[in-house]
Amino acid sequence: MARLIALQTHDVRFPTSQTLDGSDAMNPDPDYSAAYLRLRTDAGDGLEGHGFVFTIGRGNDVQVAALRALEEHLVGRDVDETLADLGAVWRELVHDSQLRWLGPEKGIMHMAIGAAVNALWDLKAKRAGKPLWQLLSGMTPEEIVDLVDFRYLTDALTREEALALLRVAEPGRAEREATLLREGYPAYTTTPGWLGYDDDKLARLCRDAVAEGFTQIKLKVGGDLDDDVRRLRIAREVCGPDVRIAVDANQRWGVADAVRWIEALKEFDLAWIEEPTSPDDVLAHAAIAKAVAPVPVATGEHTANRVLFKQFLQAKALGILQLDATRVAGVNENIAILLLAAKFGVPVCPHAGGVGLCEAVQHLAMFDYVAVSGTTEGRLIEFVDHLHEHFVTPVDVRDGRYHAPKSPGAGTEMLGKSIVEYEHG
Amino acid sequence: MARLIALQTHDVRFPTSQTLDGSDAMNPDPDYSAAYLRLRTDAGDGLEGHGFVFTIGRGNDVQVAALRALEEHLVGRDVDETLADLGAVWRELVHDSQLRWLGPEKGIMHMAIGAAVNALWDLKAKRAGKPLWQLLSGMTPEEIVDLVDFRYLTDALTREEALALLRVAEPGRAEREATLLREGYPAYTTTPGWLGYDDDKLARLCRDAVAEGFTQIKLKVGGDLDDDVRRLRIAREVCGPDVRIAVDANQRWGVADAVRWIEALKEFDLAWIEEPTSPDDVLAHAAIAKAVAPVPVATGEHTANRVLFKQFLQAKALGILQLDATRVAGVNENIAILLLAAKFGVPVCPHAGGVGLCEAVQHLAMFDYVAVSGTTEGRLIEFVDHLHEHFVTPVDVRDGRYHAPKSPGAGTEMLGKSIVEYEHG
Repeated sequence: MARLIALQTHDVRFPTSQTLDGSDAMNPDPDYSAAYLRLRTDAGDGLEGHGFVFTIGRGNDVQVAALRALEEHLVGRDVDETLADLGAVWRELVHDSQLRWLGPEKGIMHMAIGAAVNALWDLKAKRAGKPLWQLLSGMTPEEIVDLVDFRYLTDALTREEALALLRVAEPGRAEREATLLREGYPAYTTTPGWLGYDDDKLARLCRDAVAEGFTQIKLKVGGDLDDDVRRLRIAREVCGPDVRIAVDANQRWGVADAVRWIEALKEFDLAWIEEPTSPDDVLAHAAIAKAVAPVPVATGEHTANRVLFKQFLQAKALGILQLDATRVAGVNENIAILLLAAKFGVPVCPHAGGVGLCEAVQHLAMFDYVAVSGTTEGRLIEFVDHLHEHFVTPVDVRDGRYHAPKSPGAGTEMLGKSIVEYEHG
Repeated sequence: MARLIALQTHDVRFPTSQTLDGSDAMNPDPDYSAAYLRLRTDAGDGLEGHGFVFTIGRGNDVQVAALRALEEHLVGRDVDETLADLGAVWRELVHDSQLRWLGPEKGIMHMAIGAAVNALWDLKAKRAGKPLWQLLSGMTPEEIVDLVDFRYLTDALTREEALALLRVAEPGRAEREATLLREGYPAYTTTPGWLGYDDDKLARLCRDAVAEGFTQIKLKVGGDLDDDVRRLRIAREVCGPDVRIAVDANQRWGVADAVRWIEALKEFDLAWIEEPTSPDDVLAHAAIAKAVAPVPVATGEHTANRVLFKQFLQAKALGILQLDATRVAGVNENIAILLLAAKFGVPVCPHAGGVGLCEAVQHLAMFDYVAVSGTTEGRLIEFVDHLHEHFVTPVDVRDGRYHAPKSPGAGTEMLGKSIVEYEHG
């Protein structure tokens, strides 16, 4: 019988602030970082579960301390039993009554639980010899809903409704899996649009993006309106009328500012306006969405949990749902969010970039296509060409598409030498 | 020129789980704890600023790690300059772009900032030789609104509206301060109602509460409906018809369960139903409030920040606002929340109990009475008779009222020997 014998943590920080990669209206100088967790077993098969929380620098040590607080829940457990019921493990971790006080279900402690849950899924997928998206897509509807905690969701989505959605998608799974393996999943790129880049670099990167086959790009906005108009004009001229351009304000505005700013940018035919205001403000997003229609409002990378996503959907406060791999409590909670989005008919365009977010979130989008929503219509995964070289199984993005990973695991394993080289302190 | 020269932290835990004090439907065995922070200066006056985050045990070490992450912001600063503009300090801490990623504005990092802000207020009040409530009540309306960050609030409350509210209250300040010093502020007690107590203990503690002059008590509910009916019947019989009885479900239910449960308890004439569901769920609270009217819905002790409180008020999702001294980012954010409550005409009945929450939150309620809402009508501060002996200036609750503290400071300083005795690990 194999047991989980160790939870190892690392405070990994990349000095990205030196190049202004990742700079936006709220985050002028991020140092892309990972609070990193490895679960080891005594199975003797060489397989480990890896997971992490993406942060942008200061405080990554606090995030690591939160990972450590989960050691007593995990170390010593029977591996087979644990991996056989990850729904139960999720509930045990999220509903630990003392840890729960620190959120509840939000912020540092919740993200730490997400990293642990994702590490367990990584281990489970490696042991099954499958990439995570394929492992999930092979589960029965009953097995999938057993992963989800429906507490606080039933006024919008019951277990029975979730089961019905999954059953409708079941007959088409094999065909969509074949399509996915053949064609990949659509991507868009944020590489051109960071706020710290000058106009020449912006134009050059837009040109590159189109040449590389991307059909959508995204620009950061919200610093200065005149600058934003000028940068959007450059981007639209370089990209031409057929490439979609989304904009991202990174929570910079209140309601009135958001509406005024978006009206001024509408002439550039916006694909969406992302994070116009506080990620906690369902009612403000609803007011903005109503005022700026038909431009859709997108949010999600800072949405703390499924309860907030539920309300955004109920209030028609978002038109594009931006799932994040490490903000909520891992794969299980993200499945709940995919089911909510499917119920409300809202497209999911995952947040990625950072460190390892592309590697992780592609599995969720591909699972969604095969087994939940059953479509890629109006859906794209964000892509940023940074830091992939530090991962054991980096993403394969070509011709504007994510090509489906075939290696076993959740994509969350960083190279040992990168961990050593960038370990902080 | 004096400087802040040290930020010291302590992981203080009281073994309250041994007696089931504090047991409720979600928290069966809390160990009341404080992630504790002391700010020392080189002024040579012997004055320190003390603050803490209340937690219930596991994870208190993570909360302490978050306090430590603030050291680089605080140590080395000029004391006078820092204390002269606590609005600026609040913005600097809350909007640190890298730390902000860990919330934003919620959970462990946000609460840590709250403890630091409260410690600065404690120091400022001690240096002024005044209790915090009196220090705040002596500030001009302009000085008070300068403490508040109106980002994300202006769709509900602008700086000008806040100023107008404070100006209306200004002429009555002196008279209300005199009344407060003479009569104190109304309290209610939660001491009788913990879920882990048997029926005899419940009856005895209800009898004691009435004898001690309390006009309202609170019972925990949500474990089992038959038990709740039996316990409420006992409490109502012992207390008689004139004592108000509130109930608290500690987030146990979804919408449908909440409505069903409250309907079944309505015959006992409930003062309010507290935390019926997830503290993040504005829309669910609004639905419950509408369904169970006229029983008011109360929430707030787990409400992450002013943006969520704003929405609860906008959506008529709460009828009683339960401010908490250590959940949000300290005195400044609580002033924002008091101003929002005043704008919407909703009574504030602060959450207390735990460790030191009574000592801390009384200052905010008293400031509200003197300088913001100008009334105690429908308002009571929670009281639980636990752990006060560990504080330098314990609350003075007699005849069912909090008597106004007269010692300088924010009430947040724990006895040195208690810190030593209960330091964890």
